[in-house]
Amino acid sequence: MSPAGPTMWASVLESANQVSLRQVPVPAVGPNQVLVQVAAVGVCGSDVHYYLHGRIGDFIVKQPMILGHEASGTIVEVGANVPAGRVGQRVSIEPQHICRVCAQCKAGRYNLCEHIEFYATPPIDGAFAEYAVIDADFAYPIPDSMSWDAAALCEPLSVGIWSNKKAGTQPGSRILIAGGGPIGIILAQTAKAFGAAEVIISEPQAGRRELALKLGADTVVDPREVDLSDPAWRVDAFIEAAGSDAALVQGIGAVRGNGRVVLVGMSPSPDQTLPTATIAARELVVTGIFRYAHTWPTAIGLINEGKVNMDALVTGHFGLDQVVEALESPRNPATLKSIVVPSQRAA
Amino acid sequence: MSPAGPTMWASVLESANQVSLRQVPVPAVGPNQVLVQVAAVGVCGSDVHYYLHGRIGDFIVKQPMILGHEASGTIVEVGANVPAGRVGQRVSIEPQHICRVCAQCKAGRYNLCEHIEFYATPPIDGAFAEYAVIDADFAYPIPDSMSWDAAALCEPLSVGIWSNKKAGTQPGSRILIAGGGPIGIILAQTAKAFGAAEVIISEPQAGRRELALKLGADTVVDPREVDLSDPAWRVDAFIEAAGSDAALVQGIGAVRGNGRVVLVGMSPSPDQTLPTATIAARELVVTGIFRYAHTWPTAIGLINEGKVNMDALVTGHFGLDQVVEALESPRNPATLKSIVVPSQRAA
Amino acid sequence: MSPAGPTMWASVLESANQVSLRQVPVPAVGPNQVLVQVAAVGVCGSDVHYYLHGRIGDFIVKQPMILGHEASGTIVEVGANVPAGRVGQRVSIEPQHICRVCAQCKAGRYNLCEHIEFYATPPIDGAFAEYAVIDADFAYPIPDSMSWDAAALCEPLSVGIWSNKKAGTQPGSRILIAGGGPIGIILAQTAKAFGAAEVIISEPQAGRRELALKLGADTVVDPREVDLSDPAWRVDAFIEAAGSDAALVQGIGAVRGNGRVVLVGMSPSPDQTLPTATIAARELVVTGIFRYAHTWPTAIGLINEGKVNMDALVTGHFGLDQVVEALESPRNPATLKSIVVPSQRAA
Amino acid sequence: MSPAGPTMWASVLESANQVSLRQVPVPAVGPNQVLVQVAAVGVCGSDVHYYLHGRIGDFIVKQPMILGHEASGTIVEVGANVPAGRVGQRVSIEPQHICRVCAQCKAGRYNLCEHIEFYATPPIDGAFAEYAVIDADFAYPIPDSMSWDAAALCEPLSVGIWSNKKAGTQPGSRILIAGGGPIGIILAQTAKAFGAAEVIISEPQAGRRELALKLGADTVVDPREVDLSDPAWRVDAFIEAAGSDAALVQGIGAVRGNGRVVLVGMSPSPDQTLPTATIAARELVVTGIFRYAHTWPTAIGLINEGKVNMDALVTGHFGLDQVVEALESPRNPATLKSIVVPSQRAA
Repeated sequence: MSPAGPTMWASVLESANQVSLRQVPVPAVGPNQVLVQVAAVGVCGSDVHYYLHGRIGDFIVKQPMILGHEASGTIVEVGANVPAGRVGQRVSIEPQHICRVCAQCKAGRYNLCEHIEFYATPPIDGAFAEYAVIDADFAYPIPDSMSWDAAALCEPLSVGIWSNKKAGTQPGSRILIAGGGPIGIILAQTAKAFGAAEVIISEPQAGRRELALKLGADTVVDPREVDLSDPAWRVDAFIEAAGSDAALVQGIGAVRGNGRVVLVGMSPSPDQTLPTATIAARELVVTGIFRYAHTWPTAIGLINEGKVNMDALVTGHFGLDQVVEALESPRNPATLKSIVVPSQRAA
Repeated sequence: MSPAGPTMWASVLESANQVSLRQVPVPAVGPNQVLVQVAAVGVCGSDVHYYLHGRIGDFIVKQPMILGHEASGTIVEVGANVPAGRVGQRVSIEPQHICRVCAQCKAGRYNLCEHIEFYATPPIDGAFAEYAVIDADFAYPIPDSMSWDAAALCEPLSVGIWSNKKAGTQPGSRILIAGGGPIGIILAQTAKAFGAAEVIISEPQAGRRELALKLGADTVVDPREVDLSDPAWRVDAFIEAAGSDAALVQGIGAVRGNGRVVLVGMSPSPDQTLPTATIAARELVVTGIFRYAHTWPTAIGLINEGKVNMDALVTGHFGLDQVVEALESPRNPATLKSIVVPSQRAA
Repeated sequence: MSPAGPTMWASVLESANQVSLRQVPVPAVGPNQVLVQVAAVGVCGSDVHYYLHGRIGDFIVKQPMILGHEASGTIVEVGANVPAGRVGQRVSIEPQHICRVCAQCKAGRYNLCEHIEFYATPPIDGAFAEYAVIDADFAYPIPDSMSWDAAALCEPLSVGIWSNKKAGTQPGSRILIAGGGPIGIILAQTAKAFGAAEVIISEPQAGRRELALKLGADTVVDPREVDLSDPAWRVDAFIEAAGSDAALVQGIGAVRGNGRVVLVGMSPSPDQTLPTATIAARELVVTGIFRYAHTWPTAIGLINEGKVNMDALVTGHFGLDQVVEALESPRNPATLKSIVVPSQRAA
Repeated sequence: MSPAGPTMWASVLESANQVSLRQVPVPAVGPNQVLVQVAAVGVCGSDVHYYLHGRIGDFIVKQPMILGHEASGTIVEVGANVPAGRVGQRVSIEPQHICRVCAQCKAGRYNLCEHIEFYATPPIDGAFAEYAVIDADFAYPIPDSMSWDAAALCEPLSVGIWSNKKAGTQPGSRILIAGGGPIGIILAQTAKAFGAAEVIISEPQAGRRELALKLGADTVVDPREVDLSDPAWRVDAFIEAAGSDAALVQGIGAVRGNGRVVLVGMSPSPDQTLPTATIAARELVVTGIFRYAHTWPTAIGLINEGKVNMDALVTGHFGLDQVVEALESPRNPATLKSIVVPSQRAA
């Protein structure tokens, strides 16, 4: 029988703007899975969006769901095919379950799996709970020295790694990033870890520019004051992380011939107007990311080697009974990354 | 002294809608260049556009210019550094002059040369003339068996080759092409030569669909009647050659995860609205082409091996004194490709 | 219960040079697997090698094993998770079982799976039997028009496809192949299907050269009479399919700067002497193949589109009681490909 | 007239083991070239080899030649097509002259140029002289803060960059390098700059291991005591920089499936015995380097950003009249990199 018992405390999104702390069944552990006692969970913009609106695009919260997909913790139970010795292991969770059979999975592009199940994407439960279940190979051991927070933030760091891979960032690269929020800063740190010679963050808010400069960018610019299409700014790649149509157009204008454009930020509209004549005339390569694949070992390594600093992004911790406060914390401009600690809750 | 003499007959675009047949100086041959007696020149949509509007985007005809950039002919004079033995050689012309020093040239992307000079792009003269000059390595010998027309059409065929390289077309590929005009048909023939398992052309005009089916496509569809976003249509790559915003959006919807989109057709506007949420969610790779690079040997080979049929596209020949008729011929829906023969003119 | 009953007839390699026709249990069908009634099985050089020597390198036949890994047939039973509608489907078998969890599987390189099980590689049974079991996604439906023989030969054709992918064969390529046996011919046919401009087979036996020229090569040469290192022969890639040290060295000498070398043939020794100074000075890229991955859809397509002709390679059919004759048939120089038909056996 | 005057002092290799300090004509400056007053020149193993043996492979010193190809200095004269403003610029020299016309040049692989001329490769003069001439685009401006030594050592650093590009080194990579000499150390520093998680140097000499650990490697091993073919050592890529047959074989055994092997060290023999069965079974990718291409901007950046430390490799300086001492300095095991300073010579 599971050491977790039959039920656990979880913070449940009942419907938009309705969060309850209540007991729910501990999820069943499949033969190739592990049960993780959750230690830390980062709050992501998508969690906030589901909380406020009950949906993101076509993904709609139709039944109660547990949010949270940036998670770390300790393995407390293993499935029949998983070595028993893994119990007790501290792990970072890659929060996706893949079919391993479809053409995308077999081609190595498992993030595009036709049957993917992702934490906190309806109707799949996430990790704002005492326990969460995950495939054994998606629970990655972490060094003793790594904090729970940093281990949880391997998830947004994976967004940074995957985006920089798509951007082709390498030693000598000059990279422009639109948006100085947490993802913009992670993108910048990752670009530097990939060897970028110069990372420029374009961000209209002065406070965020200051923070971005401190936490990762080499240069920050105010897009209302600088004309990035000026040839003097020419960059090898542009990563859009602001979800802004204007930023997207401006950034594309900055990219050198045959350079790359990566869409990371989510625009309010599913359609955006792009300068296609420029894309063709410069033979730019425009793509986007859908989560990530194969990034966890690199993420753990970058943190462990001190090449990125995830702990520096954390601006607050919240108990399982404070999930609403955590979800509302991004309203405070001083918030970069809030962490939910499921083991903490008022008696 | 040049065997061509000091002057030659040329069809000169004096300004929009003003074409004169008159004598002009034979161009000077640089030390690494050759002078070609022009045998055949295809009429391209861009020639027609300059004729009708005097400009394409930022490229403006400000002084008299010779049109025509799809050309073949015989070398009649060589520069000091070129083997004299090349005189008499039948050649196909790659109509671009590159600096060979800028970063793009040195990286092998010479079509993006920062100092490129391209036939019939203001203010560079093209080939609707008795003679034209070109760098020796951009004049490619052709087999005796190849027609002058086919040798001239190595140019649009190069568009087909470059586009299919960008599309990643290979054995097994399923390729969607929007637009059943000459370029659409060349794209289809090239895709088949690259091994594509199925080439689908989307084209609203019934007559063009019929021709496309005969000249290269495996399947033709009317985009007003077929919903290409239906998963049953999933293609590996989509090449837009219609210059249509609606076709672009529809075609993107047909591409499988991590598939490619190549912009070939020129939209009337430099900006187009794209489904960026789909591009990101499927991690599509969107790019465009700016002419071509490294395509001529392959073009000559594909024609020579019978894998494409350029002669089948030719629907009319015009003398140098009939350039206006040639430029207006595309108004006739039966016209696919018109050829100007500079050696022919009424006495 | 299985329609196949509890036992089936199989041709069993008891030990080197010892083959028995006897009844064995029908293999169990896992939940994601199918049972195939085998229709045709090609004889491969590795089958012959196991028969003659009881081993290939470190793979040793330590217990009775069924040979044969080039197989086609009809699905007669499906596992619990497989649609029942697949029963009756004619399929080509990709004869490998992968773990889908190791780093190589997840990266899309499933042929390098750390836990791979491959038909007729000790101790895994192959297909010289009435029935064989395979994962449902490795049993590929074939068109009605495709012969059982051709469907079975999707396996060696996959070697041709994978090798040409490694060689980077594309339109315009000039490809040199050492060895004019069945694999050399399949490599040549596949290279042509990939668009190669010229395929040269180097083969010392005159009869094989003649056959190679008829069945796929554009040019054949006798390596004892032609100096392939002469710059006039320069090729884009060289595929070694003769397993000959001399052929390997000679072929490498023929490859242009930055061209590719692919090791397909198996040398008697696990080590071979290579001209490493040439590899470095020309920055050649040398690699090899270990079976294949992701090739079946392309293989079926190439056969179906008539771009390769597998039926033309078949020189003989043998019943299940004639497996020894089939395994010894390659001694006859007229043999290209022998096929075992498991449904045929003397009463 | 050149500010350099008609003649200059140069250290001339008259023939093997014969070096003279004498006056020679200042080289003529072509229209696209610059004349550089040489400030520092690193001594390379190839310089030593030409000095001792009068040849390297097929490259034979048949007439007096100036050695030295790792050079920095100040532009003192420019050709007709070069901006006059470049006079006075401090530069690092990429010591190759390319044709810019052959297929390799146009494809961006200019180091494989069919007509390449390289400093100190017979019969082309190098930089152990007061002045040297180079194409303007191969003289790269350096920051004021960069030392002459470091600027000269952009050349061996380029070997490190090019090798790591061939090795595919990226964040998370585990890289094995054979050889702890100057190139091994530069390879290690570069691998770290490319983001490698772990760089292991295999080197039999204890003193070199110690130095390698101090100057760049994360781990050092004695190849006589460690079995690198043990799966526990599995690396993503192996770079051979020892020129040792045994090291090559051992290193290949350490590479994971589909990993890479890069030949950098020069073996005494042009042929080496490789474990081809392993190369095929693991689908390893084996290649080598021939100098480098496109590396200088990255080299200057890596030094400038402090990601590598070239100055730390310099163990001695020599005047133009001490070139023999410089060439013999590598006999001293404490020597890593000797620098010749052409402006210094006894009166």
